[in-house]
Amino acid sequence: MKKWDYQNVRGTQDYLPEDESVRVWLRRELEEVFQQYGCKPMETPMINYTDLLASKYGGGAEIKKEMYTLTDRGKRALALRYDLTIPFAKVMAMNPDIRKPFKRYEIGKVFRDGPIKAGRFREFTQCDVDVAGVDSPLAEAELLEMATEVFRRIGLNMTIQYNNRKLLTGMLDICGVSKDQHSAVILILDKREKIGDKQVVNELKEMGVDGKAISKIAQWLKQMSQSGIVDFATDRPTTPIMAEGIAELQELEEALRYLNIDSQCTFNPFLARGLEIYTGTVYELFLTEGAIQSSVGSGGRYDQAISGLTGEEQPMPTVGISFGIDVIYTALKMEGRINQKPLLDYYVIPLQKQKEALAVASSLRKQGFRVDVEFKNKKLTKALDRANKEKIPFVILIGEEEVASGRYKLKNMETGAEQHVPFSF
Amino acid sequence: MKKWDYQNVRGTQDYLPEDESVRVWLRRELEEVFQQYGCKPMETPMINYTDLLASKYGGGAEIKKEMYTLTDRGKRALALRYDLTIPFAKVMAMNPDIRKPFKRYEIGKVFRDGPIKAGRFREFTQCDVDVAGVDSPLAEAELLEMATEVFRRIGLNMTIQYNNRKLLTGMLDICGVSKDQHSAVILILDKREKIGDKQVVNELKEMGVDGKAISKIAQWLKQMSQSGIVDFATDRPTTPIMAEGIAELQELEEALRYLNIDSQCTFNPFLARGLEIYTGTVYELFLTEGAIQSSVGSGGRYDQAISGLTGEEQPMPTVGISFGIDVIYTALKMEGRINQKPLLDYYVIPLQKQKEALAVASSLRKQGFRVDVEFKNKKLTKALDRANKEKIPFVILIGEEEVASGRYKLKNMETGAEQHVPFSF
Repeated sequence: MKKWDYQNVRGTQDYLPEDESVRVWLRRELEEVFQQYGCKPMETPMINYTDLLASKYGGGAEIKKEMYTLTDRGKRALALRYDLTIPFAKVMAMNPDIRKPFKRYEIGKVFRDGPIKAGRFREFTQCDVDVAGVDSPLAEAELLEMATEVFRRIGLNMTIQYNNRKLLTGMLDICGVSKDQHSAVILILDKREKIGDKQVVNELKEMGVDGKAISKIAQWLKQMSQSGIVDFATDRPTTPIMAEGIAELQELEEALRYLNIDSQCTFNPFLARGLEIYTGTVYELFLTEGAIQSSVGSGGRYDQAISGLTGEEQPMPTVGISFGIDVIYTALKMEGRINQKPLLDYYVIPLQKQKEALAVASSLRKQGFRVDVEFKNKKLTKALDRANKEKIPFVILIGEEEVASGRYKLKNMETGAEQHVPFSF
Repeated sequence: MKKWDYQNVRGTQDYLPEDESVRVWLRRELEEVFQQYGCKPMETPMINYTDLLASKYGGGAEIKKEMYTLTDRGKRALALRYDLTIPFAKVMAMNPDIRKPFKRYEIGKVFRDGPIKAGRFREFTQCDVDVAGVDSPLAEAELLEMATEVFRRIGLNMTIQYNNRKLLTGMLDICGVSKDQHSAVILILDKREKIGDKQVVNELKEMGVDGKAISKIAQWLKQMSQSGIVDFATDRPTTPIMAEGIAELQELEEALRYLNIDSQCTFNPFLARGLEIYTGTVYELFLTEGAIQSSVGSGGRYDQAISGLTGEEQPMPTVGISFGIDVIYTALKMEGRINQKPLLDYYVIPLQKQKEALAVASSLRKQGFRVDVEFKNKKLTKALDRANKEKIPFVILIGEEEVASGRYKLKNMETGAEQHVPFSF
């Protein structure tokens, strides 16, 4: 027979039990917090109509280029979802009577046929919480508090940067950037922390932004690095849209203070978030320690996307947050923060007495314990090695003597203590 | 704006919170039982090489015709997985040093571009438990006991039918069916309960089985309807392969009796299970009450498939069981067995005092409660309607008076009793 040399498709990976059991734990922690915040689970299909996913209210042009397309026996034009936001909007459109505010979470696979970099996959898990139907900035405050609770529970220190797109838009107006260049300029400003002010100016020149506008932006970059919202509100001229953004930010900050999470949150006037759908508050979550520099979560308010998709005149105010489950998992692993409980309570090793071992396991399982029986007739030393390696707290030995005397041998693997436990075989 | 008329792709569906919260509960119950039986979680990619999925050790010819194929920017020939067994075998092949017995479960989406019937979807969830590396029938007994525990926990009465493919093969040999017709004849016999003996004979004629063989099969069908394994062992001639099957079945039955689950298990000498990969024991799970006639789970022993895929000379004894999560969910729903706990413990209704409501919610959440805050400025009667509809046990009211007096109003929705709870706003 030919020996196959199997491998996974580029950009995909298996999660073997050692990793997956931590991911299962992580997902459950997230889900429990989400439910404490009144969010409910939802599941949407991965296969969608290409038309839906290609909507202008969907992901950016880059993401759309990375869609996996396929067809079915009905020759439909289909694609795999690249995020969980469009499917959420689709559900809102298909179920207009759904009660608002609608607070849902979804954790599931998404697909992007993009370039592979370290830690980037083509098939990966997204984890989104969205609230549709609330226009108050308190919705943002609640989601940000939820985010602090998530990271508190999993034991990672996290800080939140926030901004408001209206402020950014207003500043670009004041600097004299033409409307049609806003999105592109925002994308460049968004990279500021990564590429530095000088490179920002270079890229603005390259894209052909007006020279006067660039020097105003450069001045702004210089001055505003250390400023807070107050400076925007008092020190400079404001446009109506800017004033709106400032009012929203001030209301948000008041709520963050009231909820006692303001010390974890920092205003960053250059934070933009790439996606064009955002209309107000935007935020990004970063770890304060360790090697992970990229964000571990992000989101913001997008009041136009759902109504854009549904075709309603009335905007549907919506705010969301996305947690980077894969990068959070990597961080937990790197920080050694995974104090995982052993997956088994008991390990039953039969010495020729397999059926009887199964009966003992069965009785312990009925009491709620997690029990494995060794069916492989391993040597005792090998079996005990496994118990030590997997930190299984108790081992049970069942041989002829044990069955004859109606007692099995229970070994505490930490202390080494042994005792005999009566059992009617 | 154009009003879009969105719909899901044929064969796919959304699970809205009402359904999905039950499915989340069901998955967790299953996972907890799996872990009690020493099984560990694993996750494999949905996108695979077409070559892997098209392997002859994979699904049957019908299933392969239903593969969704796609490609990526590397022009690879790819397909979406149609089951969780091939990905499991792939992991075994890629990780030859994995410790055996390897007991893993996986719950995930699979895809089949097949005809749509009631309750059949093109994108659906499979839930598999497999044990690789144990050749003793005790592995089957353990999985069947686990299945009884699953259904006990979720409150559905279930019965197991079992058989052994070696017995079936031996009987076909004795009846004089030629080897190359075995698979097709087994598929026809498998439909016996559905189509009746007469139709079985008709279909055997249609496929061109030898006349003498057919009359022997017909005789067998008539005689064996009521017989047990003992009849096979004593009443008739046996072939070596049949003797093997009988010995395995007797060992299995002894274990089922020893584990006290024999009353839930019935020998069915015609049970075949469609898939060609099975080599020994096969079983199928049925509900004993209600309208669901189709099986709610099934599986068996397949000792050749993994070594076939890996190209090893040595067979890898493997036994698995698959739970039909979607049909189980439907049964729970139809039987009214879903006594779901309310998703919320508290519902905080602010009367203009939203920020303060958020603070009260925050404090309750920190105590572990699931709390929702009404941000929509709903009328009080409407908000209370929701509390009743969703069976939320407690409602909290926070208006100007409450904030001024430093006490919020707590209403027990079942008794109607109200009390004032101090809170420092």
